Amino acid sequence: MTTDGQGSAKERVSRRKVFGLGAAGAATLGAGMVAANTLLDEPPQAHATSTSDPFPFYGEHQAGIVTPAQDRLHFVAFDVTTDKRAELVELLQEWTAAAARLTQGKEAGSYGAVGGAPEAAPDDTGEALGLPASGLTLTVGFGTSLFDDRFGLARHRPAPLTDLPKFPKDQLIPEISGGDLCVQACAHDPQVAVHAIRNLARIGFGKVSVRWSQLGFGRTSSTSRAQSTPRNLMGFKDGTNNLKLEDSGLLRDHLWAAAQDGSPWMAGGAYLVTRKIRMMVETWDRTSLAEQEQIFGRNKGEGAPLGKRAEFDPLDFAAKGPDGEPHIKSDAHVRLAHPSSHADARLLRRGYNFVDGSDGLGRLDAGLFFIAYQRDPRKQFVPVQMGLARNDPLNEYIKHVSSALFACPPGVRDGGDYWGRTLFEG
Amino acid sequence: MTTDGQGSAKERVSRRKVFGLGAAGAATLGAGMVAANTLLDEPPQAHATSTSDPFPFYGEHQAGIVTPAQDRLHFVAFDVTTDKRAELVELLQEWTAAAARLTQGKEAGSYGAVGGAPEAAPDDTGEALGLPASGLTLTVGFGTSLFDDRFGLARHRPAPLTDLPKFPKDQLIPEISGGDLCVQACAHDPQVAVHAIRNLARIGFGKVSVRWSQLGFGRTSSTSRAQSTPRNLMGFKDGTNNLKLEDSGLLRDHLWAAAQDGSPWMAGGAYLVTRKIRMMVETWDRTSLAEQEQIFGRNKGEGAPLGKRAEFDPLDFAAKGPDGEPHIKSDAHVRLAHPSSHADARLLRRGYNFVDGSDGLGRLDAGLFFIAYQRDPRKQFVPVQMGLARNDPLNEYIKHVSSALFACPPGVRDGGDYWGRTLFEG
Repeated sequence: MTTDGQGSAKERVSRRKVFGLGAAGAATLGAGMVAANTLLDEPPQAHATSTSDPFPFYGEHQAGIVTPAQDRLHFVAFDVTTDKRAELVELLQEWTAAAARLTQGKEAGSYGAVGGAPEAAPDDTGEALGLPASGLTLTVGFGTSLFDDRFGLARHRPAPLTDLPKFPKDQLIPEISGGDLCVQACAHDPQVAVHAIRNLARIGFGKVSVRWSQLGFGRTSSTSRAQSTPRNLMGFKDGTNNLKLEDSGLLRDHLWAAAQDGSPWMAGGAYLVTRKIRMMVETWDRTSLAEQEQIFGRNKGEGAPLGKRAEFDPLDFAAKGPDGEPHIKSDAHVRLAHPSSHADARLLRRGYNFVDGSDGLGRLDAGLFFIAYQRDPRKQFVPVQMGLARNDPLNEYIKHVSSALFACPPGVRDGGDYWGRTLFEG
Repeated sequence: MTTDGQGSAKERVSRRKVFGLGAAGAATLGAGMVAANTLLDEPPQAHATSTSDPFPFYGEHQAGIVTPAQDRLHFVAFDVTTDKRAELVELLQEWTAAAARLTQGKEAGSYGAVGGAPEAAPDDTGEALGLPASGLTLTVGFGTSLFDDRFGLARHRPAPLTDLPKFPKDQLIPEISGGDLCVQACAHDPQVAVHAIRNLARIGFGKVSVRWSQLGFGRTSSTSRAQSTPRNLMGFKDGTNNLKLEDSGLLRDHLWAAAQDGSPWMAGGAYLVTRKIRMMVETWDRTSLAEQEQIFGRNKGEGAPLGKRAEFDPLDFAAKGPDGEPHIKSDAHVRLAHPSSHADARLLRRGYNFVDGSDGLGRLDAGLFFIAYQRDPRKQFVPVQMGLARNDPLNEYIKHVSSALFACPPGVRDGGDYWGRTLFEG
């Protein structure tokens, strides 16, 4: 090591400092936002004033669920490779501390990428040095398989965390399904999301192993009324009637687990379903506009329900056209997916588009990485998907290739709390 | 088709209109930029005033080479499946017309995603409706294999378009290497880059087939002095001494093909090498800071040459530390890659980071998608890479898994010109 190299190694670079906002200032701002949210009994929803700003990490609920959906995703599922409960708890504590720093635009550990001793590996991998927080949220979940007999958790498995049934037409690939743990990283900069997942994987070396991971872009749902509705890779607006963070009453009923649901440790948490849905975009692109719109039940330009003018015009499934046929066909996607078809089952969706190169058969490997949060998948995702899997004409153009289910515990409080404390110590 | 659906289908949605800038206005602006550039004999370099603005499409050189590197990439290589030269020419004409529209924030065809007859497939796939131009550039290239005997092009193959030699330690996967044609889409929004590639693939249905495609993020090189130097997934600043668009003299000598090089149809074009370089990031992340910095020859925090203070301080390979050893070791990456080690060979690099999920062995499938433009790969990329492949200690942490070489023809002029006209009609 040269003299100069040592000098620079000892100089700690603060990611925040580069952008003129001291770490102390950022922490104060974050705490202020949390306090305001707590007073109002609202989920963390502080709108970052720009796409570079941080969202608060601490709160009643984990960030990254109702947080206004950021533009980029890196999702990872881990297998736990240690069989020691204490090591698993220690990992969750280390991850929580790192996430509290990363989401505020700091490096993963206090010695950073260029601090500490030059003969030691840095405690941050460095590729986000100089980048702002970029709205990063990190959300952790526990898979069904974590509740086997390895860690003494079997009796704490919540009833809603029951393996999903096999749906008609499922073509799931086991290697990219399931997982003991997951972390969802959302941010406005993919480099920031990738950096966060990579550093959590680095911290978990020897205790966890990456099972699968997925990058996504172009959020396909709005989770706030302040956001415009984005388009999926079929070119349609998606998630118009999604649960939004402003719907406090609906969120209480349909999103957040409660103590009376049977697993008090999950109170304030939510259940997460992911499905990787490959789209046969080349086939879709040769389908007529009329057929595309009839399959969805909305027009392509505005996203208006067929028979209506504007995107947010209410759906009227009874309305008929001059030909006496319903504007929205009996098997239109918007009708099959609607709460009225499933005992008012609602989901908070925050999926992403993906393109994973090509498939070796001359086609893009593209589609939707579906993400939905809910209070009980047995009453929400499962009946909705069962109806779609049986009847949706979209099935001609899509294929479900991966599936996973996780229990996302409640948020953490500043000072000694950690992801999953209510499970391990509750 | 319902009455209302027909009505909305006939209503053409202009992507530009959504953002308040009419197509005519955008066209005028674009033409003005091109004119100014042409007068100054400069490559297209108009700095978009924001990341949503368009770059000019027409010009002496193709955009997307010296254009200030955008943040996102979708790169695709095609196999040509037709054996008819006329169909290939027709495709290049259709692609040129579509690219002229797409890069200005318009839809791929004049009937768009919701225009034309409802019983016809839309002539745009729709997922970029409502999104601005986002700095999209589309750059086309012709692979060595295009110059076989299928299209009568063999005698026009330029000498610099000679298959790359096998480099030591290459672990190339044929299915993601090579290709008859390529299109590089760069933009500030991945949805816009993906949309462009997908629509070109759609237009090419029956004539070309996707061979491989690659998404990238976090540009790893600056191509303009107005840009800060980004970091690769090893956490280091990369491309500090890259050729920049401001270096007019160097670009003339090292980047642009000239008539006297032997293939007049390539005058104003450049040769493109792509290499997918997988990084063993998990191993790298356990390497000490001192070793990381010695391998690169720069410090990690600032990107300064070892022994110097600031990123742009000149490299001094003779300088020694108090211990009598050179600050920059004899096999440091920065020394091996430096023009002084290779008869002044220089490259214009504009690569991207990638994460393609995980590798099934518990690791992220991550690395660098290397992209370099140059006047003659035989004198530039080949000697540089031969030196690196033999001696670079970075090889312990990286693996070259794909390789491709393309001749990118000169830019096109407004009015009847098309990508490759000088080759097919020259």
